[in-house]
Amino acid sequence: MSKKAVILLSGGLDSSTCLAIAKKEGFSCYAISFDYGQRHRVELSAAKRVADTLGTQEHRIVQLSLGDLADSALTDLRLAVPETPSEGIPITYVPARNPIFLSIALSWAESLGARDIFLGANIVDYSGYPDCRPEFIAAFEKMANLATKAGIEGEHFHIHTPLMHLNKADIVKEGAALGIDYALTFSCYQANAAGQACGVCDSCRIRADGFKQAGIADPTVYFS
Amino acid sequence: MSKKAVILLSGGLDSSTCLAIAKKEGFSCYAISFDYGQRHRVELSAAKRVADTLGTQEHRIVQLSLGDLADSALTDLRLAVPETPSEGIPITYVPARNPIFLSIALSWAESLGARDIFLGANIVDYSGYPDCRPEFIAAFEKMANLATKAGIEGEHFHIHTPLMHLNKADIVKEGAALGIDYALTFSCYQANAAGQACGVCDSCRIRADGFKQAGIADPTVYFS
Repeated sequence: MSKKAVILLSGGLDSSTCLAIAKKEGFSCYAISFDYGQRHRVELSAAKRVADTLGTQEHRIVQLSLGDLADSALTDLRLAVPETPSEGIPITYVPARNPIFLSIALSWAESLGARDIFLGANIVDYSGYPDCRPEFIAAFEKMANLATKAGIEGEHFHIHTPLMHLNKADIVKEGAALGIDYALTFSCYQANAAGQACGVCDSCRIRADGFKQAGIADPTVYFS
Repeated sequence: MSKKAVILLSGGLDSSTCLAIAKKEGFSCYAISFDYGQRHRVELSAAKRVADTLGTQEHRIVQLSLGDLADSALTDLRLAVPETPSEGIPITYVPARNPIFLSIALSWAESLGARDIFLGANIVDYSGYPDCRPEFIAAFEKMANLATKAGIEGEHFHIHTPLMHLNKADIVKEGAALGIDYALTFSCYQANAAGQACGVCDSCRIRADGFKQAGIADPTVYFS
């Protein structure tokens, strides 16, 4: 029986590629997504489509009322999503999002008997989020192995970030080579109700550039 | 204006004492509780009573569908809560509970401008949970300061665990000296619907011993 892994799946380009890589590496995949008050909640439909199409053992959507707590343009509809590149950490930063998501994934992993967790974090074309950097991932992994029964019993939890040092074009090529239909995926921070992308937010821009530089047709449907 | 702190408040003896200590230290207190699928959900009423009585700036109850994911006697009604002391980590252990709760508290803290988080973790009379040990707290704090905007900008997040090295009797004495009415608090893992305690679970036994050894009358109402 193949080893189990938990994959954080937003339904975006990165996490979908990450799921395809975990499958290629032979893991039996358990996908987890979060309904946390994000304005782009339509991404959860993409996550479901991707999980169904690529194939997972289970796909869970965790309900978490984070929008009431976290100060971010991704959860507060009164704040505008930036439509031009900015310096530093953008207001789409959601405080401690990856610590929260990884901790919940860790809980499920320990319960399932999985010791491997995949996250599509990336520092090359990333948007300046501190909880996407390798220093954070290493510190989280260390904490996870001190926090859990399995960890202190010597069964090492491993946080895999196979996209960390790839640029977006390389991620697109990797996913395409693994057969992902990127039309299933969804990355926009402010899509409309029909699930069409804005084309101008950080996430859309980085994604569009990735397709362009990879020389692969961009299947995203834009409303603007 | 006094410094803000986020206090993890279950409504139990330890976290209530922790809130009283944070107030004594002059912090402006923001309490956070979790509705995570625990069988002893009645503790949330105690958390509310304690927050109201001791006084907090705000008290938030976060909804989190953890019960579907975590394998624990505290969230799975098919598993029995142990009624005699056991060796090692008990089945009331909820995988990665403190990493999850602290990460969510961290998100709120960063959003509020608080850099101090209080947790009533304790290793003396504790029930064998790995995520209550000082090694875990230190690793979490390190991770938190690499994960967040404020952390990487040099504003240090500090996880306070003022009860870590106290025994339960000392915690009871400290809280009593700070004026806590422990009748407001609630610790049982398997209370009945009226909020009466079982008197036999680990949490009840450690609590009752604490009152006994402190020489303070136990105000807990037991059903058995």
